[in-house]
Amino acid sequence: MSLETKTKPLFITIEGGEGVGKTTNVEYIKQLLNASGTEFIHTREPGGTPLAEELRELLLSKRGEQVDEMAELLLVFAARSQHLNTKILPALSRGEWVLCDRFTDATYAYQGCGRNMSTALIEQLEQTVQQGVQPDLTLLLDVPVEIGMERARQRGELDRFESEQLAFFHRVREGYLRRAADNPQRFAVIDASQPLADVQAQIAGVILPMLANTP
Amino acid sequence: MSLETKTKPLFITIEGGEGVGKTTNVEYIKQLLNASGTEFIHTREPGGTPLAEELRELLLSKRGEQVDEMAELLLVFAARSQHLNTKILPALSRGEWVLCDRFTDATYAYQGCGRNMSTALIEQLEQTVQQGVQPDLTLLLDVPVEIGMERARQRGELDRFESEQLAFFHRVREGYLRRAADNPQRFAVIDASQPLADVQAQIAGVILPMLANTP
Ligand SMILES: Nc1ncnc2c1ncn2[C@@H]1O[C@H](COP(=O)(O)OP(=O)(O)OP(=O)(O)O)[C@@H](O)[C@H]1O
Ligand SMILES: Nc1ncnc2c1ncn2[C@@H]1O[C@H](COP(=O)(O)OP(=O)(O)OP(=O)(O)O)[C@@H](O)[C@H]1O
Ligand SMILES: [Mg+2]
Ligand SMILES: [Mg+2]
Repeated sequence: MSLETKTKPLFITIEGGEGVGKTTNVEYIKQLLNASGTEFIHTREPGGTPLAEELRELLLSKRGEQVDEMAELLLVFAARSQHLNTKILPALSRGEWVLCDRFTDATYAYQGCGRNMSTALIEQLEQTVQQGVQPDLTLLLDVPVEIGMERARQRGELDRFESEQLAFFHRVREGYLRRAADNPQRFAVIDASQPLADVQAQIAGVILPMLANTP
Repeated sequence: MSLETKTKPLFITIEGGEGVGKTTNVEYIKQLLNASGTEFIHTREPGGTPLAEELRELLLSKRGEQVDEMAELLLVFAARSQHLNTKILPALSRGEWVLCDRFTDATYAYQGCGRNMSTALIEQLEQTVQQGVQPDLTLLLDVPVEIGMERARQRGELDRFESEQLAFFHRVREGYLRRAADNPQRFAVIDASQPLADVQAQIAGVILPMLANTP
């Protein structure tokens, strides 16, 4: 077998509501990948490139001006197009895995279910921007809304999304669980209400068998 | 006739390539509207609200990072959605005319013809964002590309669009002329290569008959 015929690099996304532990557990997954010698990049949405990070700032900052929902949705996909085409796809082409803190499932959960925007429109934009590209694996960290909010609150000041009403976050959680139910082939739902060590044991149970397949 | 049954306020856009004289002539149209006592707002795209002006900055600034074309197109429509829903439509609802320096025809000309992006995709985004809203009158200031570029150059440093190659601006001009040919009911094409006084005489010839209809 030549060096060129390696296992295809994987595109892994980590999803879930506010404060469920995405960023904490991405660090753990990085340790697993590093230990196995897997080449990867770690990135996040919205953001991941200088332009997309500027858009993240615009999206998350609280402002006097009411943000139009359609503008918000188009900004999310503008940032995603920049991120996908200038960072994610080039990394995968180089043979590197991509570990991404939030991706399009977050758009279905936040803009779709949270803000009640049309799922058909999100699907149309997803197709336009992603041209069929999908994560190979999506880890959904699921916790009851109250626990996630409490974790986020303890961490400091709330951003424009974190300042939404409780009903919004219940819709977001339902949205994520529906995405998982509709896409079982790539979703792994992790009960993230448990102590961190137990959450990480579940994550290792999903990730390690995939690493075993790499050369 | 009650005071409520006024003539419907008009949505007027001013279009054309770089340095054709849009901003100069918007000032002249403002004088015509003021002289007739017409209530109006004057705005521009990309921009027109604080968020949309921040997006304008992102779109026009030159940056190390290559800007993905799809990201650019989605940003333009994100800014437009914010502008339309929070500024243009509220003004028209209050009975005020709207005078706008560039609008969606610029997207067909720059992103469509200039960057060769799909017209069908632009139409889809236009429908999604505008829901059928169109300008009542579009003044297209048309000049040979070389004259416009020379006017823009004399004005100072070039932005990210103004720094494109000459062929790009020829496609933009063709794009605008095609939009005018395809939408004759709302377009007035003005030969803007003439001296300013003659350009303004042409503009007055289009605008004054419309003002005559207001109470
Ligand atoms: N299983 C856990 N048990 C208890 N606390 C946890 C657990 N996982 C994470 N935390 C804590 O919860 C807080 C939020 O974690 P983290 O920042 O990783 O969440 P997040 O999902 O990235 O949040 P955001 O949506 O705001 O990006 C942190 O203080 C973290 O230490
Ligand atoms: N008819 C004309 N003849 C000669 N010069 C003109 C004429 N109209 C405008 N100009 C000059 O050309 C320059 C560009 O005009 P202006 O800024 O109004 O163009 P613009 O279309 O708004 O440009 P941009 O696309 O960069 O916004 C200015 O210096 C202006 O004074
Ligand atoms: Mg995080
Ligand atoms: Mg101008």
